[in-house]
Amino acid sequence: MNKKDSSVEDTLCGRPIERVLEETTNFHGFPAPGVVIGAVMVDLAREQIGPGIEADAIVETLRCLPDAVQLFTACTLGNGWMRVLDWDRFALTLYDRATRRGCRVWLDAAKTAAHPAIHDWFLKRVPKDALPLETLLGKILEARRTVLSCRSVIISDFLRRPKKEAVAICPGCGEAFDPRAGDCCKGCLHGKYFKMDGA
Amino acid sequence: MNKKDSSVEDTLCGRPIERVLEETTNFHGFPAPGVVIGAVMVDLAREQIGPGIEADAIVETLRCLPDAVQLFTACTLGNGWMRVLDWDRFALTLYDRATRRGCRVWLDAAKTAAHPAIHDWFLKRVPKDALPLETLLGKILEARRTVLSCRSVIISDFLRRPKKEAVAICPGCGEAFDPRAGDCCKGCLHGKYFKMDGA
Repeated sequence: MNKKDSSVEDTLCGRPIERVLEETTNFHGFPAPGVVIGAVMVDLAREQIGPGIEADAIVETLRCLPDAVQLFTACTLGNGWMRVLDWDRFALTLYDRATRRGCRVWLDAAKTAAHPAIHDWFLKRVPKDALPLETLLGKILEARRTVLSCRSVIISDFLRRPKKEAVAICPGCGEAFDPRAGDCCKGCLHGKYFKMDGA
Repeated sequence: MNKKDSSVEDTLCGRPIERVLEETTNFHGFPAPGVVIGAVMVDLAREQIGPGIEADAIVETLRCLPDAVQLFTACTLGNGWMRVLDWDRFALTLYDRATRRGCRVWLDAAKTAAHPAIHDWFLKRVPKDALPLETLLGKILEARRTVLSCRSVIISDFLRRPKKEAVAICPGCGEAFDPRAGDCCKGCLHGKYFKMDGA
């Protein structure tokens, strides 16, 4: 992977690259290129908003990127600090919870053109087998921020989930739910994704 | 927390309780009661579907539970094995990817009635300050599966995200997107959650 010994480039999100790859593998199942470039994106956004800021995150795709945010920031889906939009755009925003000012970073298709392996992977120009993982990871760790764009933004739509206030028992299923949903829970409202086995 | 020395009850999801609490704190920010009871739920569902099964997960709330699934199974949001429904029901299903058979587990409000601290927390009957975290965690680790219900289910609505197939460049923002969304990306379609800073 052409790493340079003890250079500043050998760290990402405050840890050695090896640990980024190891944490990604443990959590995500393998060192996915999308999570690794995600770490580079988090690193850039974090640097842009400056030190000591409590940051919330918004991620614009379900693919890979939410795991980079969950691993390399304090924001997770379950603690409510990361919100995820199913927009299929490879972009994330970290922003100051207090001021709503932040930085949006995206993997820039135009900039990946200078890096054929990354370009082909990102735009799905070649089948997965044609691009060995090790090669692609090496290219990503060489290219780093040169394939990214970023902009300072102010969050205009807050997107944070409402605090849990009251809890009611659904007359449909008998389970606890948030009565702001209506007379019954969203599960009973939207229909089941399962049927009983053996029923 | 009234733990018994080296009893089988001192493990959860294949690790000592201390490690469950430590991993929860590292990932989620603190040993949240919702993540800890989530670990008990994962443990029960996992046992019900049996060993050696590659399981996908469906979670029915954004609160806490997705973090338990991400920490204590191989399923994460970013690797696509965990799907999350914003239904505000404290329930999860683990199911065999191949057969779609699985187990749905939920925190059962009726069963929590026998455990006042858990009942009050779950149904939000008392303010947070009135229930010290340490006390609540102790009660959860005492009660464990006695406050849960579970059912064998067959997944009828698959819910898995479609595989990335083609990538196009959005004429609106110039970013890469999935052309199945339409002529432009969902970000341009739905409107921004941010405005440019200084623009």
